[in-house]
Amino acid sequence: MTAAIDFYFDFSSPYGYFASTRIDDLAQKYGRNVAWHPILLGVVFKTTGASPLPQLPLKGDYSWRDFERTARFHGIEYKRPTHFPLPTTHAARAMLWLQNHHGDDLAAAFARSVYRALFVDDINIAEPAEIMKLAEPLGVDVQALDAGATSYQIKDQLKAEIEVAMAKGVFGSPFVIVDGEPFWGFDRFDQIEAHLKSRRQTELRAVPNPDTKEKKPA
Amino acid sequence: MTAAIDFYFDFSSPYGYFASTRIDDLAQKYGRNVAWHPILLGVVFKTTGASPLPQLPLKGDYSWRDFERTARFHGIEYKRPTHFPLPTTHAARAMLWLQNHHGDDLAAAFARSVYRALFVDDINIAEPAEIMKLAEPLGVDVQALDAGATSYQIKDQLKAEIEVAMAKGVFGSPFVIVDGEPFWGFDRFDQIEAHLKSRRQTELRAVPNPDTKEKKPA
Repeated sequence: MTAAIDFYFDFSSPYGYFASTRIDDLAQKYGRNVAWHPILLGVVFKTTGASPLPQLPLKGDYSWRDFERTARFHGIEYKRPTHFPLPTTHAARAMLWLQNHHGDDLAAAFARSVYRALFVDDINIAEPAEIMKLAEPLGVDVQALDAGATSYQIKDQLKAEIEVAMAKGVFGSPFVIVDGEPFWGFDRFDQIEAHLKSRRQTELRAVPNPDTKEKKPA
Repeated sequence: MTAAIDFYFDFSSPYGYFASTRIDDLAQKYGRNVAWHPILLGVVFKTTGASPLPQLPLKGDYSWRDFERTARFHGIEYKRPTHFPLPTTHAARAMLWLQNHHGDDLAAAFARSVYRALFVDDINIAEPAEIMKLAEPLGVDVQALDAGATSYQIKDQLKAEIEVAMAKGVFGSPFVIVDGEPFWGFDRFDQIEAHLKSRRQTELRAVPNPDTKEKKPA
């Protein structure tokens, strides 16, 4: 058995979106599952003192250019969103409610829809009505989702989930932790793959070969 | 003819060091030269409000880990420096003096020595005496170098060079500008290569084929 890959992301993070289009295939290739964790960079940045990239002097213009070029380089659909930056609290809470009530797979499908809505279809995912529309095709009771996403229980859960993430060292989006090894950024996916590959080789070597009589140490 | 690749770096930047070990081979592969530009991130960060990575909450520990892992992943020699962070003003000024008096090739060789001294041999490159020792094997008058590196002329030149870099959008290390296209970070070297490749293909197509009679527009 191998452990799941923890995937942390903010719904407004373009590099998080790019990562979301690749993480499942990468994990599957090495027999791993992905645990999707929505976080809020606004909360994280209060600790690190960081700011959203596009708002920084000099870095801002570069970032927009790099989002487009990186999407093109990796063959990922991307359209610069009109609504940006935007609050992703409701989307993150809705995802937690879906995880609690419908499980990880449906919640991950929802996350992919939300990302696509923002970074391909230019939909304002800060609007609860848009979140309901995105959840509808998944066969979810969208009224229950809307109520659940604004409940105190889910608000508290999201806060606690972000605290846990930060305690584990998460400070950006996308952020991946696998076997205790942290990776920040979509541009570390090559190193994540190298890690997964080397772990698989170690495991293959660890499987005893039934044809070989092994000498046990005395 | 193709334009040179502008390569901006701070001597205390680990990712700048990694880039310095690869930039020449990459450029040569596509028939380009490299223009090496030492900058001071301390000056740049006053504008962007950024801080050195290893000093940031949460990001600090991660960074040290990522430097080592990235070096290993790319097969680059690296040893965590004891003297860090450290001022790189003298090294940058010495490099400019060498460029002025001995040309770009010798100055680039000096830059590679300085990077190696800090990130492989754990030498305190903030010490003018160490800078002189590193320049000696290059056949340079090290007394003249030491005097030149602390002259007002070179101090003013470094200030101006950094202003020019920032005016061109440089905000980090390594930072590469090629054909007006900016790339931040050693992890953009794959995209730099893609750019160089596509430019070369465009040029090859632009070369008129002598066997073909071309119709000129009337």
